[in-house]
Amino acid sequence: MVAASNANAPIGVFDSGIGGLTVVRELMRQLPDERIIYFGDTARVPYGPKSPDTVRRYAREIATWLQHQGVKAIVVACNTATAHALDTLEEEFSFPIIGVVEPGARAAVRASHGGPIGVIGTAGTIGSGAYERAIRALAPQARIAARACPLFVPLVEEGWLDRHATRLIADDYLVPLRQEHVDTLVLGCTHYPLLKPLIADVMGRDVQLIDSAHETAAETARVLDAVGLRAQGSLTCPHRFVASDAPEQFLRMGQRFLGTAIDRVETVTLG
Amino acid sequence: MVAASNANAPIGVFDSGIGGLTVVRELMRQLPDERIIYFGDTARVPYGPKSPDTVRRYAREIATWLQHQGVKAIVVACNTATAHALDTLEEEFSFPIIGVVEPGARAAVRASHGGPIGVIGTAGTIGSGAYERAIRALAPQARIAARACPLFVPLVEEGWLDRHATRLIADDYLVPLRQEHVDTLVLGCTHYPLLKPLIADVMGRDVQLIDSAHETAAETARVLDAVGLRAQGSLTCPHRFVASDAPEQFLRMGQRFLGTAIDRVETVTLG
Repeated sequence: MVAASNANAPIGVFDSGIGGLTVVRELMRQLPDERIIYFGDTARVPYGPKSPDTVRRYAREIATWLQHQGVKAIVVACNTATAHALDTLEEEFSFPIIGVVEPGARAAVRASHGGPIGVIGTAGTIGSGAYERAIRALAPQARIAARACPLFVPLVEEGWLDRHATRLIADDYLVPLRQEHVDTLVLGCTHYPLLKPLIADVMGRDVQLIDSAHETAAETARVLDAVGLRAQGSLTCPHRFVASDAPEQFLRMGQRFLGTAIDRVETVTLG
Repeated sequence: MVAASNANAPIGVFDSGIGGLTVVRELMRQLPDERIIYFGDTARVPYGPKSPDTVRRYAREIATWLQHQGVKAIVVACNTATAHALDTLEEEFSFPIIGVVEPGARAAVRASHGGPIGVIGTAGTIGSGAYERAIRALAPQARIAARACPLFVPLVEEGWLDRHATRLIADDYLVPLRQEHVDTLVLGCTHYPLLKPLIADVMGRDVQLIDSAHETAAETARVLDAVGLRAQGSLTCPHRFVASDAPEQFLRMGQRFLGTAIDRVETVTLG
């Protein structure tokens, strides 16, 4: 158990790259008094195609580094790292570890009216079956329709959020889910909140979209409350943004993902 | 100088991932008697967003590993690694090192009738200015129009070679180059040969496309002839395909990139 005196310590957040900044954005909105240290493993992005052992090794290295920075909890703001490494981190570290999969799955089960639950994500996340397992753990009879959407991440990183080509690609990926009459769709990738208006338009107003970033921030608030680790008083130190290589991408894309510009990025080499 | 007795040693080829297989395809076509060891650094793909120092370190590790396999020459079948690491490898290794940039640049200068030369590639390759430098070294007065096409790699890896969305994206990237009246267009990324029919269609028949993979294989033949290292007699041992992580992608996409299925991939961890 962590000492309550740590309540004003920062929350560590990590992702393979910049996508986890959508989770930071929600944390800043829902938990404005919390200080955040974000680690984007830009030297080793993407995690999706890498083996579970490799991803676990990376996650352990980053969590150890965040521990040395004195964090009180870690948010694994990366679907692949959550799928492969959450259990390992929970075993090896004594502070709370929050992943992105479980909160999204729980919100989806709550929102669904019994229709199939749709899940979209990268090929790695969908291939891992992590959302299916998390949903079935809560609702064993749930029908699930999962679909990998590999072009969404590069489209978001290119800033093509509402182009005609993006719409055609979204139709191709999502119309089969609409035809299966999913009533809920989990956005199972930290990049996808930026495509929410387009995805909502393709799916139609009857389908409830579950934003994992939003749910993960809400879960973080619940966990910190439960262990008495919510920050006391308002934020005094600035957030820290750390990249393992080439911080230019953060500076260039921070605004798009975070909703506010990042003006300083530290570089830390791991491994 | 390398001993002529090494003529039947294999050629080492490496890339950050699977893209360099288009170069292997051309080597197999143009140099059918040569044995190839291909190393795809799938554990650390992509190189594009990584810093030059990091890319040089990776390239040195791979070249050292290939040296231990007894290669007689190395083809750097990766635009980013060529841009950042070719000089370093040439200094540190005694056998011939062939990159992908110089052969493409030379073919473009030969093919151009004085109109601007277009260059397309990943953001990393275009940002490095490597093709511009190589073209200007040969033709200091050349006009050059360069354009990053970041969505082409994921579209190729998704297999969307002739979809309507791909056409729209190609129009967006390429029409500005057509409007600048380029007479030659360098496909400065090892993934792009798979989009050649579409790119040719967008650019029109008057624009000559330069396929770096094709030119690099031709350059390899010239270099091996010049140093007396062309294989004697026909191929007896099979080619080797090596990945630094998760070989499934090779098995799945080998056919598309290589034109023939890969049935066995070794895994080797570096670094």
